[in-house]
Amino acid sequence: MTPASTVSPQAAAVDRALSAFRFICGDEGVSLGEAVREQHGRDESVHRSGCRPPDVVVFPRCVEEVSALAKTCYKHNLPIIPFGTGTGLEGGVGALRGGVCFSLRNMDQILDLHPEDFDVTVEPAVTRKTLNSYLRDTGLWFPVDPGADASLCGMAATSASGTNAVRYGTMRENVINLEVVLADGTIVHTAGKGRRPRKTSAGYNLTNLFVGSEGTLGIITKTTLRLYGIPEATVSAVCSFSSVQAAVDSTVQILQAGVPIARIEFLDDVMMDACNRFSSLSYPVVPTLFLEFHGSERSLEEQVNITEEITQSNEGSDFQWARDAETRSRLWRARHDAWYAAQALRPGCKVSKASPPGVICFPVYVCVPLSRLPQIIVETKEDLMESRLTGPIAGHVGDGNFHCLMVVDPSDPDELHRVHLFTERLARRALAMDGTCTGEHGVGLGKRRLLCEELGPSGIQAMQKLKNALDPKNLMNPGKVLLQGER
Amino acid sequence: MTPASTVSPQAAAVDRALSAFRFICGDEGVSLGEAVREQHGRDESVHRSGCRPPDVVVFPRCVEEVSALAKTCYKHNLPIIPFGTGTGLEGGVGALRGGVCFSLRNMDQILDLHPEDFDVTVEPAVTRKTLNSYLRDTGLWFPVDPGADASLCGMAATSASGTNAVRYGTMRENVINLEVVLADGTIVHTAGKGRRPRKTSAGYNLTNLFVGSEGTLGIITKTTLRLYGIPEATVSAVCSFSSVQAAVDSTVQILQAGVPIARIEFLDDVMMDACNRFSSLSYPVVPTLFLEFHGSERSLEEQVNITEEITQSNEGSDFQWARDAETRSRLWRARHDAWYAAQALRPGCKVSKASPPGVICFPVYVCVPLSRLPQIIVETKEDLMESRLTGPIAGHVGDGNFHCLMVVDPSDPDELHRVHLFTERLARRALAMDGTCTGEHGVGLGKRRLLCEELGPSGIQAMQKLKNALDPKNLMNPGKVLLQGER
Repeated sequence: MTPASTVSPQAAAVDRALSAFRFICGDEGVSLGEAVREQHGRDESVHRSGCRPPDVVVFPRCVEEVSALAKTCYKHNLPIIPFGTGTGLEGGVGALRGGVCFSLRNMDQILDLHPEDFDVTVEPAVTRKTLNSYLRDTGLWFPVDPGADASLCGMAATSASGTNAVRYGTMRENVINLEVVLADGTIVHTAGKGRRPRKTSAGYNLTNLFVGSEGTLGIITKTTLRLYGIPEATVSAVCSFSSVQAAVDSTVQILQAGVPIARIEFLDDVMMDACNRFSSLSYPVVPTLFLEFHGSERSLEEQVNITEEITQSNEGSDFQWARDAETRSRLWRARHDAWYAAQALRPGCKVSKASPPGVICFPVYVCVPLSRLPQIIVETKEDLMESRLTGPIAGHVGDGNFHCLMVVDPSDPDELHRVHLFTERLARRALAMDGTCTGEHGVGLGKRRLLCEELGPSGIQAMQKLKNALDPKNLMNPGKVLLQGER
Repeated sequence: MTPASTVSPQAAAVDRALSAFRFICGDEGVSLGEAVREQHGRDESVHRSGCRPPDVVVFPRCVEEVSALAKTCYKHNLPIIPFGTGTGLEGGVGALRGGVCFSLRNMDQILDLHPEDFDVTVEPAVTRKTLNSYLRDTGLWFPVDPGADASLCGMAATSASGTNAVRYGTMRENVINLEVVLADGTIVHTAGKGRRPRKTSAGYNLTNLFVGSEGTLGIITKTTLRLYGIPEATVSAVCSFSSVQAAVDSTVQILQAGVPIARIEFLDDVMMDACNRFSSLSYPVVPTLFLEFHGSERSLEEQVNITEEITQSNEGSDFQWARDAETRSRLWRARHDAWYAAQALRPGCKVSKASPPGVICFPVYVCVPLSRLPQIIVETKEDLMESRLTGPIAGHVGDGNFHCLMVVDPSDPDELHRVHLFTERLARRALAMDGTCTGEHGVGLGKRRLLCEELGPSGIQAMQKLKNALDPKNLMNPGKVLLQGER
C-alpha cells in the first residue's frame, strides 16, 4: 500500500490517511499509480532536481471535499500540493517532500456569470480558453493571456500575466474575490462569500495576498474575475527596426503618448529567425515589434497613426498588417510558439511540440523599469555571445518584461554551468536596474535565493511571518517561494 | 511630566520613553501640549466616542527616526498611531488607548521622479495637490483624487480612491512600492529597496497588504506611485435625468460600450439642490450625472458622441458643457464641496467650511455591483424619507460606489438613533447585494462590526492572524479595522 519505496514516517502517515481520502473522494478519486504520480510531480519547467512525485494524488469534486482532504492532511502532517493544469514554469508543483497532490481537474464549472457587472466566477479546472469560448456570445472576454492554456485559478496562484498586461493588467488587477482552503481545511472567501464589488477598502487585501502565493498559503478553489467588452475592432501589425534601441525607444514613446496599446511584443533578430523558420513566416531578421490595437474603428485609426509616426521617427519599417482574424491569429500563434521555435534553432534537434529530444528549452526572464530596457537587452545579448549560449529574446516590452528562451543541451555540463552563471548575471543586472528577478511566472523553486536578494532580509522575514501565520505547520506546497523548511 | 490626568501604567511608560523620544527627534520633535495632542487625536469623521488624544506627539524627520521611535515604543509597549494630514473619514487616527502619535509632517520630500518610467517616490507629508503642482511641467500627473488634499502615504494606508477611479484605478492599482516601519522598528521595502518594476510576481504581495491596512500593520514612510500622462484634452459635462434608474442605466451602458470615461458622478435631486444653493449654480433639481472625458481631441469627440447617444436613449437632457479649465474646475469644486453644501441644507445653520455650528455632516457609503445600483439607490431614498432624515446622495457610480451625506443635529438623540439604524440598514442592503460596506475610506472605527458580517468568521480570523504575525504586541493603531484588543 505504501507508495514510496522506503517506509518513511511520511509513507506510514500517507497509509493511515488513505482510507479517509477514499471516504472523502471515493476510490476513483485517489490514485497511487506511478504514472499518475509522476505526471502530477512536474510542470513545464526544467526544475527537476530535488523533486519527487507526490505520494498520492487526490481528485476532489467540490470545495467541501478539498476542505475535508486538507483537514486529513493537517492531522497527519502531510504536505499539500495544489495542481491545476501543470503549465507552470517555475517548478511550483514539484513534490519536494512528497505528500498529497490535490488535482483540481474535477472542479470545472463556470459559475455566476454577471454580464452586466463584467464578472464571472470559475472553478480551478476552467482554463482561460474554455472561459473565453464560453463567453463568446456575451460580447465579453477575459484578456490575461500567458500563452499556455492555463487554469485561471492557477494563473491567480502564480500572478500570471502575458502579452495583454500592458493594457488590461495582470491577475493582480483582475481578480475580485477568491475562495481559498487553508492548510487546516478552513474555507476563506478573501472578499467575503459571493461578494464582487468593483472596489473595496474592507480590511486587509486578502485577495492580493493569495494572488501570487503559488499554493504556499492555501488552495484556490474559486476565482471571481473581472471581464472586459470584446473590442469593436482589432488590428495587429509588425514593424522592423535596425537596432534594439530603436525598437525599445519606440515602445517607450508609444506609451508616453498615451496610446492604449493592447499588445507590444519585442523579438530580437535571433528570435525572428527562429519564428520565421518554425512558423513559415518571412519577416526581416532584425529587432522587431509585434503590435496589437483594440478599440472602435475610429480610435484604432488614431492609435495606429500616432504609433506609425513614432516608429517612423525611430526609422522603423512600414507596418506589415494583420487585419483579419485568421492572419492575426497566425501572427500571435507564431509569438506564442516562440518556445518551440527556439528549440528548433539547435541543429540536429527534431522539432516537436510534444517533446523535442536532445535539447531543453526554458525561459530566463526579468522585468525592469521601461527606461532601462535598451541597456539591459543590449548587455544581455552581449553576455549571450560571450557565454556562447543560444537564447533568443522575446518580451512584453510595454511592461519592461522580457525572456531569453535558453536552448540548452542537458548532456553538456559545461553548457549547463554557463547557463546557470548567465541566468544569475541576468537577474542581478535587473536587480541593479531597480527591477525584479520575476515579473511573471512567480518564484517557485528556481528563484528563491534571488528573491532574498531582491527583497532583503526584512522583506523576506515579513513574508515568512505571513507564511507561518496562515500555514504554521508548513504543509502548503513546502519549499516553494521561501527557502524555509528546506534547509 | 505625565500627559494623562491619572498616572496609569501607560502614562508612566510614556514618561520613561520621553527622554529617548527627545534624544531621537530633538526637543522640538516631541510635544505634550494639550492643543497639539487634541489636534492629532481626531480626523474629519464623527467617530469621537472612546477616543482620547494621544499621550504624546512625535515629529520624526526621516525613516531612521521613525524606526528608532518605534523601537522605543515597542520596548515600552506604547501604542503607535501614524498621522498624515488627518483628513480621514473613519476615525483612523483616534488614540483609543492613548499612546504615541507619529506625526509625519516633517517628512515632506518628493524623491526619485522618473518621468520616462512614469513613477515617483514621495514621503508621508506630500499631499496629492503638492505632488501634482510639482509634476505640472513634466506632462505627468497622479490621478487618484479622494476630494480632500490628503497625504499620498495616508491615501495608500486607507486604500483611497475617488472620482477618477473608474478610469485610473484606486491606490491599490497605483502603488508600486512602499517603505514601511513595523511596530518593532524593522524597516521593510514591500517590493525591495528602490525597486519599481511595472509588474512583479516576486513572492507575496506585501505592497497590497499594507495598502489599506490603516496604520494597523506598520507606518508607511515612503510610497512609490505610478504616474500618467496629462491627457491632451479634457472636457466635462452635466446631464439631467427624470429618474435615478435612467441616470444609472446610462452609467452602466456607457461602461458597457467601453467608453474610457474619466469621471462619472451621480448626484440625486436633493444633492443637486444643495449644490446649486451652495455653489451658486442653476442646474435642474433632478437626478444628474457629472461627466469628464480625457483623451486626444479626436478620441474625446468619439467618447462624447457615444455617451450622448446613450444618455439620450435614456431621455437624459442635452449636455451642459464645461470645456475651459476654469468652468471645469468650478464644476468639480461644486462636486467636492458637496459635503459643505449638504450641511447648508439644514435650516438655521450658518454655513462655513471651517466648522458649521449646530449640525454635523458625515458620509455613509457603500459599494455594490453596478447592476444593483438603481435598486439600492431607490430603496435608500425611500428609507431616508421614511426615517425622516436628510441625506443627499452623491456617488462614484462608475464603480458602484455612493455616499449619503447625512446631515444631523447631534443634540437630538432620537435623530441620532434613527441615523444609526439607517446606516446599518444601508450597509446590510449593500451586503445582501454582493457588495461591500466600505468601497473607500476604509474600516477605521466605524465599520469594524460590519466588516465581520462582510467577511465572515474565517476571513476575519485570517486577517487577525496576519495582524498578529506582523504586530504581535498589538501596538500599531490598536482597535482599528479589527475588533481585537478592544473587548
